[in-house]
Amino acid sequence: MTNTVIAADIGGTNLRAALVAVDGTLSQRRQVPTPKSATPDGIVQEIVGLLRAVVEAADETALGVCLAVPGLINGDAGTVVIAPNVPGFRNLNLTTPVSGALGIPCFIENDASAAALGEFRFGAGRGARNLVHATLGTGIGGGIVIEGRLYRGSKGLAGEIGHVVIDPTGPVCNCGSRGCLEAMVSGVAFAARAKRLISLERSPILKEMMGDRDPSSTDLFAAAQAGCQHAMAEIQNGGHLLGLALGGVSNVLNPDAITLSGGLLAMGEMLLEPMRKAMFSIAYGPASGTIVRLSTLGDDAGLLGAAAVCFERLGEESSSEVLKFW
Amino acid sequence: MTNTVIAADIGGTNLRAALVAVDGTLSQRRQVPTPKSATPDGIVQEIVGLLRAVVEAADETALGVCLAVPGLINGDAGTVVIAPNVPGFRNLNLTTPVSGALGIPCFIENDASAAALGEFRFGAGRGARNLVHATLGTGIGGGIVIEGRLYRGSKGLAGEIGHVVIDPTGPVCNCGSRGCLEAMVSGVAFAARAKRLISLERSPILKEMMGDRDPSSTDLFAAAQAGCQHAMAEIQNGGHLLGLALGGVSNVLNPDAITLSGGLLAMGEMLLEPMRKAMFSIAYGPASGTIVRLSTLGDDAGLLGAAAVCFERLGEESSSEVLKFW
Repeated sequence: MTNTVIAADIGGTNLRAALVAVDGTLSQRRQVPTPKSATPDGIVQEIVGLLRAVVEAADETALGVCLAVPGLINGDAGTVVIAPNVPGFRNLNLTTPVSGALGIPCFIENDASAAALGEFRFGAGRGARNLVHATLGTGIGGGIVIEGRLYRGSKGLAGEIGHVVIDPTGPVCNCGSRGCLEAMVSGVAFAARAKRLISLERSPILKEMMGDRDPSSTDLFAAAQAGCQHAMAEIQNGGHLLGLALGGVSNVLNPDAITLSGGLLAMGEMLLEPMRKAMFSIAYGPASGTIVRLSTLGDDAGLLGAAAVCFERLGEESSSEVLKFW
Repeated sequence: MTNTVIAADIGGTNLRAALVAVDGTLSQRRQVPTPKSATPDGIVQEIVGLLRAVVEAADETALGVCLAVPGLINGDAGTVVIAPNVPGFRNLNLTTPVSGALGIPCFIENDASAAALGEFRFGAGRGARNLVHATLGTGIGGGIVIEGRLYRGSKGLAGEIGHVVIDPTGPVCNCGSRGCLEAMVSGVAFAARAKRLISLERSPILKEMMGDRDPSSTDLFAAAQAGCQHAMAEIQNGGHLLGLALGGVSNVLNPDAITLSGGLLAMGEMLLEPMRKAMFSIAYGPASGTIVRLSTLGDDAGLLGAAAVCFERLGEESSSEVLKFW
């Protein structure tokens, strides 16, 4: 009895795949640039090619395959509705052709939802029953595990933590609203704050660092580390606002754990210390029992998330003892 | 085979009880002032007395009893941890003595959580799978139904919609934080706004209405109806902020329905129109499929909520076909 699945992580830059055992052990890793084909068929063929390479190198038959995609998914139909950062991924059915080509069940999942289930099964969320995962990167995403199962919401849109409003008079968000968390605290938001510091001539350090280039959130952090008090204040205030948003989410969902991943975590305690303080200042903060943990899965988070979803979906459809136990 | 339960709704003013059938039909209603005894035993005796009156008047034996309490509940232990508006309800075990006295299983539940399950089973949330219920009164409470079951969170604190932060620079909340929904939009918050309008001499209408009395949220609405533009603007802005908060909750949970109850609904479209507009302006608003509905249960919401919890809890512990079906 085999108990491995194939996991694929479709990013804006790379497409990664691997064989994943039920205990989270990865093998047969493969990586290629994300398909740039002009046609849906071409994209599917490139994906299938990579997955076949994993299958053929494996000693055993995988039980299924799951693709984590950074976009809006219709899981029942097996289609990517839209993935803004992956060209060609629009109303694209992936599960039917992939399942047909490999001869095993295929599932797709939103990458942030998959990441949540990955942390729950293999990472910082192990031992939790109810978990909220937030991905803190260029944008802010999230996923939710309720009573040990991935929670997708009624239309598959649950977990959009980036779009809780924390300041009705804040900057306009990509979504059209104002003061969403993502518009206030994210890679893009920090970059905008950095640019503003330069234009207001409040950060000679940052100005000298950048020359004619536009600053990123990483540059803002570098300036703060180099002693710019204004840059540090921006990051600390960002942490405070992030904490208020996560505190609100915690008050609504009262999870055992909130897990965090993403590039903004490189800012370390400068971001996290005010975040924790703000989060636990609200209502039932410490009494909620909610703990905050940083992802332990590193670069494998995407693959392990997809694998976790695959095992969960197979378990729902199977009478296998291994999978039921899972 | 009987299929009725006893529901009790413990409010700050009245204690109500009734027999409730599995289809939501109420009978044998009883009401007394909320127990004011100085001792826990006295309180329990008063509650048991009312419940006995319902039991003895009934034609059939009830399957169980559930008490909805406006406070923090430890459902597993059967205790009220604290109910700020009900004197004596602090670390008070209710289920053991009530169950002992009546000879049937007894459960307790937070009233807002019970209300959510009541709307889901009998009211405005029928047909939903995932539901968020918000109680808009003196304070703001809430409850959550996930995949058809009441969701309590890891420490029984889920649903505290009143404590999502919507303005980090807003007024101080009872919880100690700033700018929580409850501090910005609630009976208490509207009363404070009304008082401020008078002190700033912005509402001659309200000032004349009140004389030396302090205004309530009802007075603010009356002034708005009488033509005070400032009072109307406060209510409309409150609706806008409420919509932003509910929109954020909707983005996190993507429920089928958000149901609303409570005294603030008397403000009607003056509050609700800007609320809906703000809510659906955020991120996946209309695409989320989330609908907003007003409670249809009126004064029976508390009793029907308690009954819904009782049926759910009995079903979890029973092999009865009626209850399993439920």
